[in-house]
Amino acid sequence: MTVTDEYLANNDAYAATFSGPLPLPPSKHVAVVACMDARLDVYRALGINEGEAHVIRNAGGVVTDDEIRSLTISQRLLGTTEIILIHHTDCGMLTFTDDEFKREIQNEIGQKPEWAAESFPDVEEDVRQSLARIRNSPFITKTSSLRGFVFDVATGRLTEVS
Amino acid sequence: MTVTDEYLANNDAYAATFSGPLPLPPSKHVAVVACMDARLDVYRALGINEGEAHVIRNAGGVVTDDEIRSLTISQRLLGTTEIILIHHTDCGMLTFTDDEFKREIQNEIGQKPEWAAESFPDVEEDVRQSLARIRNSPFITKTSSLRGFVFDVATGRLTEVS
Repeated sequence: MTVTDEYLANNDAYAATFSGPLPLPPSKHVAVVACMDARLDVYRALGINEGEAHVIRNAGGVVTDDEIRSLTISQRLLGTTEIILIHHTDCGMLTFTDDEFKREIQNEIGQKPEWAAESFPDVEEDVRQSLARIRNSPFITKTSSLRGFVFDVATGRLTEVS
Repeated sequence: MTVTDEYLANNDAYAATFSGPLPLPPSKHVAVVACMDARLDVYRALGINEGEAHVIRNAGGVVTDDEIRSLTISQRLLGTTEIILIHHTDCGMLTFTDDEFKREIQNEIGQKPEWAAESFPDVEEDVRQSLARIRNSPFITKTSSLRGFVFDVATGRLTEVS
């Protein structure tokens, strides 16, 4: 039995008490961009209820073309206007460099990734970097609020990056 | 007061009862790739506890270079081996075509996105497409289980795509 099977059994229990469907557009007009980290349960950490906010996540919570794509669709087709960006303490992205990561892959499989791994040495600096990428995108035009935070995995608390 | 401010107040309550930190690597060795849809609370729908699984999300739950990047980091640096892919019914990605979406943007701001919007006309077909992109990536080499599902926003139930 895989963990996937375990999670499917959990889903049976979830569906038994589920009531839907809610409307497609996020009712609170919010999009969250956050790291994929297992310890960051975005809905619980922000008190988000189902149907309220888009949640976009990747390694680091960095902003690449795919987050610009998702935010553009979120704003233009589904009416979100507020963006909340979340990185966190003790992030895996702090533990390596792009050069060494890509060299290891090249040594192992003979092909180097053509994409940036997007590692970073400082969480707050990278929050600012990700905010800048959103701010400077010509496609993200409906933003009423854009703020960036660091989630502390020891305390569960968000601290704003200024 | 913005919704962001509301969510920050919720975070105060969350942090008050939070106990951490958990270890960085996902304890269940799972990575989930899912749509950003507001109605899909991945942790609740699968019964995932904090610390167990990476959660990667974007518009559609499609697999682009950024999901390959995140999965590569997840597997190589943080030891995940199972991948769960989730699309859902009533998805916004079914409501437009790339051509019309990009034309509207070009007409409005004078610049056409250089990225694919990744719209799709059939959810199950696109689950298979995303599974194929993972399967065919040379960088995702540690997979012990790879399965794709459609989440029904009316019932909360996952159905596997074969």
